[in-house]
Amino acid sequence: MSFLDHIENCNRYNLTNFVPLNMGNRRVGWVKRPLIPYFAAFPDVVQCDIDDIKINPTLDTPAVLTEAMSRIGNALTESGFTSPWRHEPYAVGTRFGECLFELERAVVPAFGTRAYGLHLTGFVRDEANFLIWVPRRTLDRLTYPGELDNTVAGGQPAQLSLAENLEKECAEEAGLPSELVRQARPVGTISYHLEIEHGLRDDLIFSYDLELPTDFRPRNCDGEVEDFQLWPADQVMSVIESTDRFKFNCNLVLIDFFIRHGLIKPSHSDYTQLCRGLNS
Amino acid sequence: MSFLDHIENCNRYNLTNFVPLNMGNRRVGWVKRPLIPYFAAFPDVVQCDIDDIKINPTLDTPAVLTEAMSRIGNALTESGFTSPWRHEPYAVGTRFGECLFELERAVVPAFGTRAYGLHLTGFVRDEANFLIWVPRRTLDRLTYPGELDNTVAGGQPAQLSLAENLEKECAEEAGLPSELVRQARPVGTISYHLEIEHGLRDDLIFSYDLELPTDFRPRNCDGEVEDFQLWPADQVMSVIESTDRFKFNCNLVLIDFFIRHGLIKPSHSDYTQLCRGLNS
Repeated sequence: MSFLDHIENCNRYNLTNFVPLNMGNRRVGWVKRPLIPYFAAFPDVVQCDIDDIKINPTLDTPAVLTEAMSRIGNALTESGFTSPWRHEPYAVGTRFGECLFELERAVVPAFGTRAYGLHLTGFVRDEANFLIWVPRRTLDRLTYPGELDNTVAGGQPAQLSLAENLEKECAEEAGLPSELVRQARPVGTISYHLEIEHGLRDDLIFSYDLELPTDFRPRNCDGEVEDFQLWPADQVMSVIESTDRFKFNCNLVLIDFFIRHGLIKPSHSDYTQLCRGLNS
Repeated sequence: MSFLDHIENCNRYNLTNFVPLNMGNRRVGWVKRPLIPYFAAFPDVVQCDIDDIKINPTLDTPAVLTEAMSRIGNALTESGFTSPWRHEPYAVGTRFGECLFELERAVVPAFGTRAYGLHLTGFVRDEANFLIWVPRRTLDRLTYPGELDNTVAGGQPAQLSLAENLEKECAEEAGLPSELVRQARPVGTISYHLEIEHGLRDDLIFSYDLELPTDFRPRNCDGEVEDFQLWPADQVMSVIESTDRFKFNCNLVLIDFFIRHGLIKPSHSDYTQLCRGLNS
């Protein structure tokens, strides 16, 4: 296990296993070939060819498209190709902020559309050292139970702005009041492509740093977190470098934190590959 | 002109115009097709085929390879395909720190090998605002005369470690004493691929931030800089967003600075493309 392994673990995919999901001349997703028949069962919604799936151009409003796609999504779920619905609509577009239609979060990987999220690293400084607030996910979480997580992390639903979502997630996951959240600094993005059994995760995470007062204690409010611990950055680095204890994509956000703050240095043998690999 | 234009300007290339320069089964460079005959004139050094150029495997020490490559480099220079020699050897390898052979800096683009450099952004904080020390290159500089530059910027020669080179460049270009240079924080890399008339620039820049005391005045010691001015970050951003006044690759290092410090925000319409484009 190494820092670079985490980046490679998030970027395992073979696009020849997929066909593009196209809307006009724009690709909006990737569909795994074995799922094509399940899309083809909706000829009023998509036209499936050997090399691509074309969205019916007569479905020309976001509302109509959203309804049509939800029928395909339902069928995929009934056939066992997605996780249970979370009733969180995600925006689908060719860039952030565009919403051609909405898609239930659970079916996003089956459509291979880009999913956005946000992560916040809450830290305190003790002289020259950084300490990071690390939550552990509850053992009854549907996804990644018991794994270590970033201080705050959440998906980006279609209806909220990034700033609204940041405030909501910070309140729910760490009890952060809005006056502290407003001091959070956006510091860039992390992205990766990961092939899963029935789809592709094309994920882009907006990353934030937040230096917290030394007397602040995060407090989980939505039951997703077992406990928070304040770890010296060195300890976080060593756990990431040697284990899989953090939820898979948190490793990348934290590696980026270490690079931006000079804790992983150019003398590290994988430095240039790490820097280039964080936005793949 | 926009932030994104600067990234696109640094990433214009068409690899079909090039053949790989291979050493065994490893690619170490890219050679533009019209230059192939000039390489082919040295059959003891390289074997030129339609799809690649193979380095003669019997040249099996860095010293022997360096001598052989310098003969090709000289011939390219005599034919007018490179800039004048600067007598700065650059290391050639498949990763930073590896030196399979050395190549004169001036001929590196003709071989299309990766060139490393370092840039340092020297700044001061005035309450919540950043101010950046911006040098203007002297008008008689061989390259990019009169353009704005990063506080410190230099190529990475084969004989120095990155730390040694940082100290040397900081002293020469900005009169920075080593006790200040030691506070510089490595913050990641910037990379790009740019096709030029007779070659490819495959450049990777190690980026550093240095917060300077408010009473420190940079002082150029090697005649490369006309003057230094302390600009509010907003002014630097607006000049970059609307002009070409900065040397081409400095724009990328500064855009990265603005993103890492939250000065370019996720609400910028090109945010995700900027973040992903800085290490291309």
